[in-house]
Amino acid sequence: MRDVAIIGVGTNPKWGELWGQSLRDIFVEAALAAIDDAGVDHLDGMYVGCMSSGIFTGQEHLGSLFADYLGQKHLPATRVESACASGGLAVKSAFLEVASGYRDIVLAAGVEKMTDVSGAQATYALGTASDSEYEGYHGATFPGLYAMMAKAHMARYGTTPEMLASVAVKNHANGALNPVAQYQSLITVEQVLGSVMIADPLHILDCSPITDGAAAVIVCPLEMAKKISKKPAVKIAGIGHATDTMQLAHRADVTWLESTARAAESAFKMAGVSQKDIDLFEVHDCFTIAELAVIEALGLVDRGKAGEATMKGRTARGGDIPVNASGGLKSKGHPVGATGAMQIVELTRQLRGEAGKRQIAKARRALAQNMGGTGGSAVVHILEVA
Amino acid sequence: MRDVAIIGVGTNPKWGELWGQSLRDIFVEAALAAIDDAGVDHLDGMYVGCMSSGIFTGQEHLGSLFADYLGQKHLPATRVESACASGGLAVKSAFLEVASGYRDIVLAAGVEKMTDVSGAQATYALGTASDSEYEGYHGATFPGLYAMMAKAHMARYGTTPEMLASVAVKNHANGALNPVAQYQSLITVEQVLGSVMIADPLHILDCSPITDGAAAVIVCPLEMAKKISKKPAVKIAGIGHATDTMQLAHRADVTWLESTARAAESAFKMAGVSQKDIDLFEVHDCFTIAELAVIEALGLVDRGKAGEATMKGRTARGGDIPVNASGGLKSKGHPVGATGAMQIVELTRQLRGEAGKRQIAKARRALAQNMGGTGGSAVVHILEVA
Repeated sequence: MRDVAIIGVGTNPKWGELWGQSLRDIFVEAALAAIDDAGVDHLDGMYVGCMSSGIFTGQEHLGSLFADYLGQKHLPATRVESACASGGLAVKSAFLEVASGYRDIVLAAGVEKMTDVSGAQATYALGTASDSEYEGYHGATFPGLYAMMAKAHMARYGTTPEMLASVAVKNHANGALNPVAQYQSLITVEQVLGSVMIADPLHILDCSPITDGAAAVIVCPLEMAKKISKKPAVKIAGIGHATDTMQLAHRADVTWLESTARAAESAFKMAGVSQKDIDLFEVHDCFTIAELAVIEALGLVDRGKAGEATMKGRTARGGDIPVNASGGLKSKGHPVGATGAMQIVELTRQLRGEAGKRQIAKARRALAQNMGGTGGSAVVHILEVA
Repeated sequence: MRDVAIIGVGTNPKWGELWGQSLRDIFVEAALAAIDDAGVDHLDGMYVGCMSSGIFTGQEHLGSLFADYLGQKHLPATRVESACASGGLAVKSAFLEVASGYRDIVLAAGVEKMTDVSGAQATYALGTASDSEYEGYHGATFPGLYAMMAKAHMARYGTTPEMLASVAVKNHANGALNPVAQYQSLITVEQVLGSVMIADPLHILDCSPITDGAAAVIVCPLEMAKKISKKPAVKIAGIGHATDTMQLAHRADVTWLESTARAAESAFKMAGVSQKDIDLFEVHDCFTIAELAVIEALGLVDRGKAGEATMKGRTARGGDIPVNASGGLKSKGHPVGATGAMQIVELTRQLRGEAGKRQIAKARRALAQNMGGTGGSAVVHILEVA
């Protein structure tokens, strides 16, 4: 395989409720920003991660639509989907196309336009990431499924509502420093615990929001990146990808994210590094319990100890294992298909030293973990300054 | 890049209106058949082509669901989508994963369950392959869009309703010999012309049907295929992929499929062969006019001459350019996300000499052309006996 680097990244300017823009608009903004950042004069291919544009916007066939509206009407372009892991898998697909030698300069974007439908329709659309016939159709929503994971984690490990809330508080503190973030406001543990209950024990402030947004990454051979760009080349050193049972009820232990553990193991093996070699992490905090379960599955803390570690500040920007310096899904927003690509955008900026007030000092190697559904799929990328 | 071969193929037993089976059932049937055919003892990865399971069945996140129900719950698995070209792009994705050296044995499937919704809902779902905001929402359906292409072809080149009908007659004659085909019945030109008009000049018998079906292909390094299997190794010698404007109204010439022409050019270049080196073709005859426009874009006949060539029998099984010996989408059925994978299944069987009564003699090299929408995307594969 050829070594592959990230040569450009971009997003639409601000994630949030973008009623004045359509799906194609926000994609084009992010893609043009990435092309500008990369300084490339053409693209050879494109992948678009999007979860459910069919239900959210009545539009499939995004590869053709987006290539056309980007002014690249004959560009080979494919959509990839793995629920909320769609964006991460678009990056994996672009990596494989370049690593294989098939094409050289490939754009990977993630995008979702979620606010053009009612809340009920959005909840339905998100439910298609669960096993619809056995979960969604029987009334299980995503807050409900994650609430069951949280209840189990509390029962087994003594995790408390305060520990869950501390994830949200930390991520809002980080997101307040991120100009792209949907919510740039500080919150307190008391505010989280006092906010409306969605699915016990998850309050509204334990949940990531409904968001419109897009993010884009351009990859090319590492040697080419060094020639084209004066910015530090960020190498994709490892990629791991795994699935788990779609249904929560089929898992031996609903507090454990086996797909994330396996994806991480595979990515670490490919990169030839381990947890202790990573300077910062972007992980999939669609709910506060998710961040706790993820950092346990990644092996950053012992099983059952993630809440305690978060309360102690270990995952804060100044901690020993900084997690979601971007603000995470919680504060940055969670346009489901875009999230995985945004993680790569954030880590590239951190590794280049371009993360402004949220910059993690001496960041040389970083890990992104992106997952679909309740962990039915997961993809892990390890990036490093080449 | 490593050389990549097809080591196994399979489908669910018969395509059609499968009300007793769900989306996951038909996928598993096809995947198990391909695994049996390949004789492999494990898989390293999986891609699933599906156009609109969200709208058709209320289910996204097919990678996780299908890996789970195939009994492979941790297998890395990704869905790819490009409207009716989704199946072909699943095969391209699997090819890249193996060609790159990232993984060795990868399954690529295509699947669609279309009959669990009303005809109106199916028409809506298919319309999401057009530019919904500028075509679908204004009343343009796919039969309507292809009817405009047909009218333009007739006006410019003198193509007649009889020429269109002759495509359907030929493909039904072939499909009658294909046990998987939805319609295994002979039809006449008079029957086509006498059938109900859907969108002038396209009668119902000019249109491919609504179908439930799945097809699966397993690829691995060519050298590995030769070791594992006693069947002839079928090498993927070339792949081309391109897009065009999503909207028909934006094209300079609606009788010409530029995405197919570009995808073919790219595939021919990669394989180092030309049209005259190909023994048989599977092409995307979603409507009779589509087959005519495709064989012109592939350079098999001069522009405007496809109808005449079809009337003369050149594209019949015994002709000099056999097209859709399988029965094509018209007779075999068109589960939209499955079609591209099914073309590869058919050509593999032809190249192995396993196509029974529809076998093309001395088939050594074959081409599959699969497209999305009105040609907004297209992917071309060239296969050859290694």
